[in-house]
Amino acid sequence: MTSSTPTALDTTFNHLQNPTFLQACLRQATPYTPLWMMRQAGRYLPEYRASRAKAGSFMGLATNRDYATEVTLQPLDRYPLDAAILFSDILTVPDAMGLGLSFALGEGPKFAHPVRDEAAVAQLEVPDMAKLQYVFDAVSSIRKALTQADGRGRVPLIGFSGSPWTLACYMVEGAGSDDYRLVKTMLYSRPDLMHRMLTVNADSVAAYLNAQIDAGAQAVMIFDSWGGVLADGAFQEFSMAYTARVLAQLKRIGAQGEVIPRIVFTKGGGLWLQDMATLDCDVLGLDWTVNLAAARALVGGIENGPGKALQGNIDPNVLFAPPAQIATEVTRVLDSFGAPYQGSGSGPTHIFNLGHGISQHTPPEHVAALVDAVHSHSRQLRR
Amino acid sequence: MTSSTPTALDTTFNHLQNPTFLQACLRQATPYTPLWMMRQAGRYLPEYRASRAKAGSFMGLATNRDYATEVTLQPLDRYPLDAAILFSDILTVPDAMGLGLSFALGEGPKFAHPVRDEAAVAQLEVPDMAKLQYVFDAVSSIRKALTQADGRGRVPLIGFSGSPWTLACYMVEGAGSDDYRLVKTMLYSRPDLMHRMLTVNADSVAAYLNAQIDAGAQAVMIFDSWGGVLADGAFQEFSMAYTARVLAQLKRIGAQGEVIPRIVFTKGGGLWLQDMATLDCDVLGLDWTVNLAAARALVGGIENGPGKALQGNIDPNVLFAPPAQIATEVTRVLDSFGAPYQGSGSGPTHIFNLGHGISQHTPPEHVAALVDAVHSHSRQLRR
Repeated sequence: MTSSTPTALDTTFNHLQNPTFLQACLRQATPYTPLWMMRQAGRYLPEYRASRAKAGSFMGLATNRDYATEVTLQPLDRYPLDAAILFSDILTVPDAMGLGLSFALGEGPKFAHPVRDEAAVAQLEVPDMAKLQYVFDAVSSIRKALTQADGRGRVPLIGFSGSPWTLACYMVEGAGSDDYRLVKTMLYSRPDLMHRMLTVNADSVAAYLNAQIDAGAQAVMIFDSWGGVLADGAFQEFSMAYTARVLAQLKRIGAQGEVIPRIVFTKGGGLWLQDMATLDCDVLGLDWTVNLAAARALVGGIENGPGKALQGNIDPNVLFAPPAQIATEVTRVLDSFGAPYQGSGSGPTHIFNLGHGISQHTPPEHVAALVDAVHSHSRQLRR
Repeated sequence: MTSSTPTALDTTFNHLQNPTFLQACLRQATPYTPLWMMRQAGRYLPEYRASRAKAGSFMGLATNRDYATEVTLQPLDRYPLDAAILFSDILTVPDAMGLGLSFALGEGPKFAHPVRDEAAVAQLEVPDMAKLQYVFDAVSSIRKALTQADGRGRVPLIGFSGSPWTLACYMVEGAGSDDYRLVKTMLYSRPDLMHRMLTVNADSVAAYLNAQIDAGAQAVMIFDSWGGVLADGAFQEFSMAYTARVLAQLKRIGAQGEVIPRIVFTKGGGLWLQDMATLDCDVLGLDWTVNLAAARALVGGIENGPGKALQGNIDPNVLFAPPAQIATEVTRVLDSFGAPYQGSGSGPTHIFNLGHGISQHTPPEHVAALVDAVHSHSRQLRR
């Protein structure tokens, strides 16, 4: 099955109070442009900081089902967002491989055992998914917490993973990097090692996302956060090919027979949109450098024809401007996508998001202004 | 004058032993693909580190005519590079504005007086170029040192500046940044202040580059190192428009009546190449994310028609691979540009370069392998 058109599956989403996000993923018309925000459960929220203080650390939140549920729901209680996203980290999979993930306060992630030579690469294996049970438990718990009195879900829950290449960056560098020197040295010097690592990563990510789907994730997203640092040619060979390997293994339907949309986001990948149009996914995420009209023309598709929904792409720094300017920039992004699809079949759709995770310095009341502007202006566009 | 075709000017370059770089800038055929490397005079060279130890600091090198000359020539003495580039920093102009530039050891640049409010923006003025005399002295000194026994120059000397937007990033942030939060907050909150700062920056950069041309720079390059962090729309308004303002003020001919090619490099700007095709410059620099064949088709132009020469774009991390792999990647980049122009008029040309500055960790002998591969493979392509 190579088409991503889920004609034979349940795409009615009657089990949700607010199905707009899933509808837009499948290029169905919605009464307004749905939105969620990358890293929407995060440090900019005082209630998140309080939860984190109780849990003691980031991983203390992520590995505890109750805390993960609590912080996942926090932004939904503040803002009328159209999707929830699992609170977790993109590096749980290499941690389960035994690399020893830690987060020092105020710093990024670190691995105690980075993968830097042939012997270390040879030892890599798809981890036992039982080691990631805390993630699947969190998914089930969040789904339960999202279920309303009428038995329906409030909004859908998105599961996610880092892409094989993005995981490899951290696995080799051992931490964040500003030049990716170590991972690219391996890529250019020993492409055989890099391909082996990426194969293990892809199969691990596929198993991980499938287990999230089994636990109740209603859409899945692959974060190729570092695909954009690769050279043209290397991106296609070392990042996109392994994202495709993940997609080929993913379940297409959930436990209740519902279709599970698949989202791929390559930060800095705007130049390769035409290549990514061939990926077997439903949605492509875009950062703020991409012109939405151009992306729609390239990969958005036509009425009742194939195409990708587009997700993005406002610069998160817009949220530091006063509310009036936020509304202006929101309008600009919505308008750049062009006329919303309003037919009864499938057509070009837009899911509003930031082009990157929200900054910890964001004033929470500015997020309210953003959400309100997206919903109100996108409703106007449909009149 | 809006055309960049310098028909009435001296484009023979008889005053140079090796004019290949300037010829390629003007889309003239050359016997091989000329190359130079961004940051070619730098810390990866032991002789540079020795000079810097003598000078005491980076700015100690840059502000001393003799040291600046010494380190500018060092890479040319090791490798048969086809151009020299002034040893200096992109932040000399805001330093001359009184912002107080310093470089702490092992850290990036810092400004003592960042520009963060209306009062600070109001105070900005085009600096007295006398404060930058050390730069113009270095240019004259390097030109003299490049002059050979036959009175001709060994290779041409490139002058440069940061772009108005890139200068503004540092001026507001006060240092490097990974999110550009402060400068983007000003951009989105107070676009009027940002436009005023960019106007002063553009007029300053134009005066600065013109003085470099007067002192002997034979080509000039505008480094828009941070243009790529802007959103689509914002790039055109806040970066490209001010690069255009610089270009409009630049001298087109040097003291000897020779044409001065103009290069614009926006790191991360590959998505905006079509916009940048309208810039009144001769060469567009490209980072490694750009496909050279696609760029050539978009902006490289046709035989005897308008178009830009292209400069770039190998990933500097390729230099960490063994020499055989370096040669393979060089071949891939040269081949991706396609058939070299070999006519007697003007046509699509390529200047080989890295897609970013060379890393301080690069083994110097790997650079020799790169230079050799570029020259030998590009000669073969012309047979």
